[in-house]
Amino acid sequence: MEDEPLKQEIIRLAAANAPLPELELSGLPVFQPGWVWLVGAGPGDPGLLTLHAVNALKQADKVVYDALVSEDILSLVRPEAETFYAGKRGGKPSWQQKDITDRLIELARDGHRVLRLKGGDPFVFGRGGEEAQALVAQNVPFRIIPGISAGIGGLAYAGIPVTHREVNHAVTFVTGHLAGKGAPELLDWAAIAKASPVIVIYMAMSRIEAIASQLLAAGRAVDEPVAIVTHATTPHQCVVTTTLAEAAQAVKQQGLEPPSIIVIGAVADLHATLGWFQPS
Amino acid sequence: MEDEPLKQEIIRLAAANAPLPELELSGLPVFQPGWVWLVGAGPGDPGLLTLHAVNALKQADKVVYDALVSEDILSLVRPEAETFYAGKRGGKPSWQQKDITDRLIELARDGHRVLRLKGGDPFVFGRGGEEAQALVAQNVPFRIIPGISAGIGGLAYAGIPVTHREVNHAVTFVTGHLAGKGAPELLDWAAIAKASPVIVIYMAMSRIEAIASQLLAAGRAVDEPVAIVTHATTPHQCVVTTTLAEAAQAVKQQGLEPPSIIVIGAVADLHATLGWFQPS
Repeated sequence: MEDEPLKQEIIRLAAANAPLPELELSGLPVFQPGWVWLVGAGPGDPGLLTLHAVNALKQADKVVYDALVSEDILSLVRPEAETFYAGKRGGKPSWQQKDITDRLIELARDGHRVLRLKGGDPFVFGRGGEEAQALVAQNVPFRIIPGISAGIGGLAYAGIPVTHREVNHAVTFVTGHLAGKGAPELLDWAAIAKASPVIVIYMAMSRIEAIASQLLAAGRAVDEPVAIVTHATTPHQCVVTTTLAEAAQAVKQQGLEPPSIIVIGAVADLHATLGWFQPS
Repeated sequence: MEDEPLKQEIIRLAAANAPLPELELSGLPVFQPGWVWLVGAGPGDPGLLTLHAVNALKQADKVVYDALVSEDILSLVRPEAETFYAGKRGGKPSWQQKDITDRLIELARDGHRVLRLKGGDPFVFGRGGEEAQALVAQNVPFRIIPGISAGIGGLAYAGIPVTHREVNHAVTFVTGHLAGKGAPELLDWAAIAKASPVIVIYMAMSRIEAIASQLLAAGRAVDEPVAIVTHATTPHQCVVTTTLAEAAQAVKQQGLEPPSIIVIGAVADLHATLGWFQPS
């Protein structure tokens, strides 16, 4: 077996130059005119699109998309298709939820194949349920295409499992954008602190100080590991590990910007050993 | 516009017969010999595979797969590739976790492209973190490919959003297979009951009675909506809606069998209006 290393090297070089196979999408559903498909685009990496999502992108006539859908993914839309941006842009007023559903209904009634494209998963803090209800109310046929949610897949790209046998048998996902905003507190942070060794927070960047105080007040440890992952799964992915007491300061000092996922709990420590993804 | 319905019908028929486009996998990573890719296969529907997962299946030499990976998905493995079943089969002893990691390491050291294929997502109650740690300990290079988790995507196929603006800003995912088993209780059900209006339980079928009692004792309502989804996203998908007080009885009466996802909370009611998927 003296030649084993050489053989491996030949295999390696051959593999590196091998053309990748093509994939047939036959067997996947035909996108009928007059339908709306609510599709999750995943956290950013186009490789995390599902086959159903690609199948939808290849057939859609009209695509209504949100801020968190990447350029790479939008490039898969057919050139003949029309796209509509429904997210916020530079502080300018964005479409209200009703504008979005009205547009989806109108486009579907005009006989188009309407793709509603959302970052992550449409049913995880994505208002997909409300959009589906609006379609049902107007008898517009629809389909849901789940996507990889950043709170799971984005953290996986940081080498952080949301569950780990030695750490937790429960994980809680919360949305942070309303926390500590003077508005009535929608979350029972004391209960969450007790319920779940691992807490994953979406849209938490600007609220981390308030959230951390509540969790500390509820008895979580000052040195509890926290990881803040921005632009997860993209070439700009950034992972900062810190502690519950220092998380807010870390956001400021490092100048971190959304989109972000914040994970609180011992699994955050695993980034140091399991962080496999090398952003370019 | 008198001809509009006719025009729509022509479009519809044309669409129904249109060949679906092929998809290039170029741009996705080359699977190097000696590597292990830990891949989530999603809940069952092959259309929920990610492009990365298909890319992995098309290149792998050795595939070590679990019980919950569907035949349809295994059919995408190259004919030249060798497959290893690591799940339980008819009560016979299955591989222990150490057998699995030993095999992955051995196959990788022999210079194979090793695909570790798991149902759902490898980091959601999937022990993917432990497997990655074992690979790191032996200097075996690896990649994580997240998958659609049944607790999100499976419920979406039942028309149930895990979050819904009017219902919840937090959702807790727990694993039920250890609950009420005489073993020390690993979950603080009273805290979970308070923390999270929506609770999604994996592997809960045989434990639903114990879980429901704990949640009722913690103050959740007897008539709280519950949905039990078995074989989610597959042609055998079955959705049973019930209440917290009657869930255990429903499982028995309907003769429900795993794999299942159980969701507790007002979102379960949305199945009645948003249930879009028609299993064959």
